[in-house]
Amino acid sequence: MALVGASGDAAKNTARPQRYLRKHGYKGKIFPVNPSRKEIFSEPCFPTLGDIPEPVDHALIMVQDVEAVLEDCAKRGVPVASIYSDGFADAGPQGAERQARLAERARKLGVRLLGPNSMGVVDIPGRLALTVNAVLEMETVPVGSASLVSQSGTMLGTLLSRGAARGLGFAKLVSVGNEADLGVGELVELLADDADTRVILLFLETVRDAARLASAARRAHAAGKPVVAYKLGRSAAGEALARSHTGALAGSDRALDAYFRDCGIVRVDMLETLLEIPPLLVDRKPAGTQKPRVAVVTTTGGGAATVVDRLGLLGIETVSPDGKPIVDLTMAATPQKYQQVLEQLLDWSGCDAVLAAVGSSAQFHPEFAVEPILKAKATAKPLAAFFTPHAERSLVLLAARGIAGFRTPEACADAFNAYFSWRAPRPIQKIQPVKPSADAFQLLASLGIPVVEQQIARAPHFKHSIPYPVAVKVMGVEHKTEVGGVALNVDEKNFPVLKGETLLVQRMVKGLAEAIVGYRNDPIVGPLVLVGAGGTLAELYQDVVLALAPVSEDEAMAMIERVKGLSVLRGYRNLPRGDVKALAKAVAALSRLSSVPAIAEAEINPLIVSADGVLAVDALVVAKE
Amino acid sequence: MALVGASGDAAKNTARPQRYLRKHGYKGKIFPVNPSRKEIFSEPCFPTLGDIPEPVDHALIMVQDVEAVLEDCAKRGVPVASIYSDGFADAGPQGAERQARLAERARKLGVRLLGPNSMGVVDIPGRLALTVNAVLEMETVPVGSASLVSQSGTMLGTLLSRGAARGLGFAKLVSVGNEADLGVGELVELLADDADTRVILLFLETVRDAARLASAARRAHAAGKPVVAYKLGRSAAGEALARSHTGALAGSDRALDAYFRDCGIVRVDMLETLLEIPPLLVDRKPAGTQKPRVAVVTTTGGGAATVVDRLGLLGIETVSPDGKPIVDLTMAATPQKYQQVLEQLLDWSGCDAVLAAVGSSAQFHPEFAVEPILKAKATAKPLAAFFTPHAERSLVLLAARGIAGFRTPEACADAFNAYFSWRAPRPIQKIQPVKPSADAFQLLASLGIPVVEQQIARAPHFKHSIPYPVAVKVMGVEHKTEVGGVALNVDEKNFPVLKGETLLVQRMVKGLAEAIVGYRNDPIVGPLVLVGAGGTLAELYQDVVLALAPVSEDEAMAMIERVKGLSVLRGYRNLPRGDVKALAKAVAALSRLSSVPAIAEAEINPLIVSADGVLAVDALVVAKE
Repeated sequence: MALVGASGDAAKNTARPQRYLRKHGYKGKIFPVNPSRKEIFSEPCFPTLGDIPEPVDHALIMVQDVEAVLEDCAKRGVPVASIYSDGFADAGPQGAERQARLAERARKLGVRLLGPNSMGVVDIPGRLALTVNAVLEMETVPVGSASLVSQSGTMLGTLLSRGAARGLGFAKLVSVGNEADLGVGELVELLADDADTRVILLFLETVRDAARLASAARRAHAAGKPVVAYKLGRSAAGEALARSHTGALAGSDRALDAYFRDCGIVRVDMLETLLEIPPLLVDRKPAGTQKPRVAVVTTTGGGAATVVDRLGLLGIETVSPDGKPIVDLTMAATPQKYQQVLEQLLDWSGCDAVLAAVGSSAQFHPEFAVEPILKAKATAKPLAAFFTPHAERSLVLLAARGIAGFRTPEACADAFNAYFSWRAPRPIQKIQPVKPSADAFQLLASLGIPVVEQQIARAPHFKHSIPYPVAVKVMGVEHKTEVGGVALNVDEKNFPVLKGETLLVQRMVKGLAEAIVGYRNDPIVGPLVLVGAGGTLAELYQDVVLALAPVSEDEAMAMIERVKGLSVLRGYRNLPRGDVKALAKAVAALSRLSSVPAIAEAEINPLIVSADGVLAVDALVVAKE
Repeated sequence: MALVGASGDAAKNTARPQRYLRKHGYKGKIFPVNPSRKEIFSEPCFPTLGDIPEPVDHALIMVQDVEAVLEDCAKRGVPVASIYSDGFADAGPQGAERQARLAERARKLGVRLLGPNSMGVVDIPGRLALTVNAVLEMETVPVGSASLVSQSGTMLGTLLSRGAARGLGFAKLVSVGNEADLGVGELVELLADDADTRVILLFLETVRDAARLASAARRAHAAGKPVVAYKLGRSAAGEALARSHTGALAGSDRALDAYFRDCGIVRVDMLETLLEIPPLLVDRKPAGTQKPRVAVVTTTGGGAATVVDRLGLLGIETVSPDGKPIVDLTMAATPQKYQQVLEQLLDWSGCDAVLAAVGSSAQFHPEFAVEPILKAKATAKPLAAFFTPHAERSLVLLAARGIAGFRTPEACADAFNAYFSWRAPRPIQKIQPVKPSADAFQLLASLGIPVVEQQIARAPHFKHSIPYPVAVKVMGVEHKTEVGGVALNVDEKNFPVLKGETLLVQRMVKGLAEAIVGYRNDPIVGPLVLVGAGGTLAELYQDVVLALAPVSEDEAMAMIERVKGLSVLRGYRNLPRGDVKALAKAVAALSRLSSVPAIAEAEINPLIVSADGVLAVDALVVAKE
């Protein structure tokens, strides 16, 4: 292990890797590299990497001239270099160029890079603490079976520190920095094959290679290793949304949400959930539960209510064999009885998970309410506990037994919600390639999506054969409604009503509801399809559902089910039912645009849904620039 | 202090009050009462309360025959009894009757009651630990200036325990149980006058006396003591919503939300926020900030991002003097520089609060990033800190200095959101009393709300003078739209179209948008007014805003601003602007129904909003049963 730029001043960040490697029991050789020192912390120091007399497996680069050290690595046959130094893509366009050159050179030289701007790697079972993160000041670092890949170096320390305080250990932790070479996807692949790792946690600020991560997630799924993501940038999405029209509906965070779901990645909403959820997932597969039910056993009604309430907000029902929302054992419980009730519920087909909410006994009398949880015979059904008081020792007991324990009702409910929302990676659809067309309506026709009866009418006579009343639209104008380029319900005596050389004349159709169906080749996650309720209000409420394209008709049907505003088509308040199947068919058809790289966006808005079919009334196609 | 039903078996709950009183230094006399013992824990025991030879200030009743002890209390002139015993309103209708009799008797006897089903009272500065809650097993209980009134006995322990672990102490904690006599409102009044209390926390499962709590909250506000509530039952609201039509929009949790807001009570979303928010509020008044901006200073970009992201989700902007979303001091900072930056931001008019996000130094080097926070010169502007690692000692340091410290990005953002949403109690409006009428349209007319031009047309000739096209409605039918009792755009040749003896004929009007305006005398919080976007979609999205009635026109305008779907009236996407002022006038007018106790509900749906005025097209009044 070569530490290039190691410092002998214990207060400096660059002194940490050497101190931490030794402190946490690294058994291999350490070679500090620093031209101004002969010895650092009693180990011989070398002026350059080239001066190290033995083979080097891994170099940690902490100096400004990263490029020179890379050349040294190549000369010495060092296979991997981790780069702590910054000033690359993290430092604007010039830095990004510098990074691209560095990555290109490393590829040529055959040296793999972690970083730049990486806080390093920690392999706890391997006793390798190759990091500048101060969290390694900790005396002992607990071993666990969760591994972390983080785009934030700080979070490596945060999660390690918070986990250690309550017995939640880790296997490997990697700070990927700018991902010039080794990225999140490749690391997930490596962890999918890693014997120490049973669940993979991601702390993400962005997704740089969605395709690689998607295939890595599939590989992890096949290896029985759940992947969990906490991702930042949800609110910035709000801004991006406002920018363009389709953008307004397929904003990037929603896109990522669809991406995670379709790749089989569990997404958590709260930071602490990322730490607390692993035992709920380890050795489990996505259950695909549609209407999840949790049995909550408690000795504290008030404490259980906080989590029952939160579960309810997330649409998760709480059930018990006697029809009450909780199984209340207050006062009546002996530890034996408690354990027995837990085991009965774990066997009971009426619930999908069991939660024990424990009050003050978690803090002062773990033998009453915590030990029964530890002793309860495990089944495939998830069992978790929420402790109302400050009860870190009891959390440690749970962690040691691999049982999920939660410190707050909110993270507990978030974890159950994430667990129940977890789906297996979606099978990849085989689709018929689509014949591209720049004309939106022609494109729809070639996809088999019905278009309203329409004709073009030209000045001066505006002849057409569409029966009245008609809709009239001035052609070649964007945002027609806003600029008065549309007239509806036009009859013969008013026609043509609007001023323009070329008018589109359409039969007036009135269905049961309007839908929006969109396609977008998202710059981050790739082809996406969306369906939502149409009209201004639905746009205001952003009531759309996205999925990675292409989708099958069944998958499109499942998307439609999740659109609130389209419940009017499913018989809401006895309203007449619409042809949801035809809508699903249109969604699946539009999603086939994923086979046309030249198309950036397409949108049908509105698609009129009636009792027997759908009709596209307005459509738009945007070619890739 | 008389402990009726005290046990000598230290393992029993009923032994706790005596143990805890002594353990935590109660200086007064304790009289255990138990006919089967001569002595308990070395203190003389009495067969009945009547046998106690000295005056008794307070009796804690832990026996089944509460009624008999109450009589003893009266005979001995005991002014207050706390009742731990259950089997009252907590045990169904018979229990509720028993409770009513008990309360009535106590009133006659002049004995004040806390409970039944109360876990007791803890007065930390007064060294009075009169409770069965096991949390008092703690060796020392930190003193603080927050007092808690809780409807859950467990939560008294939960908050005390969690607070103690990080130096957040309390003044008084009261478990109110079933509130047969002393209720949340009266306790808030007492705490408003209590010298030890600077902020009042409420853990609520329901609100039993909304008027009393409202006036208590005003009193606390006048005394400069913020009141904060965490309330359960948010998801059960969802069910209640589904029941009736107005109910669907004015569901009880939304009603409580409006109630808290209008009473000047800060509402928090997360349990931990209740514990963490007090230092943010102490000695502050509601700032009434419309578009809040927080300056986030950090030495850890990734850590700060978690809270910046969450603040953004809640609509809180993060700002810095140089236009970036955070003030990043990574690497460059000395403690002096850090403190200086904090002080500059506290003085900077461009932000409404300052947050320091601290990484691993919070755990290992508090002198770098925690001490500057402690030393920064306090201003009226809130200063808070979020620590990314496990850093309880640093949290204790903040608590000791009265600075808000947060353990999770979510609770931190929740607290800022609660703080910025905090409003002074709304002034009570003086209104003209309304002349009640069972006819909805007549009632609207008497309130000055414009009604669409309409006439009743009767069989067999259905004569009327409304110009065509008209809308026709069969009278005396509910949910007309769903049963086909409405026909729109009817012209002369089709009229009357519908079958019925009596038809309502209305002029067809088409405005820019439809609104719903409702009034409801809520069984819990009293008169409420609501405004929302009209139509099925808006109903699906529950896009309504509620306020305690009556409201002024200005207040109604502020309500309308908060309705998403009504942004179409404010020029959204260049759509023509509607007469929002006339809508506000209608909302204020309908809210005056609060002067008519006989009316349970009223609703205008839709109220058509055009560019110059509003017109009620359908209306409903429900009398109180």
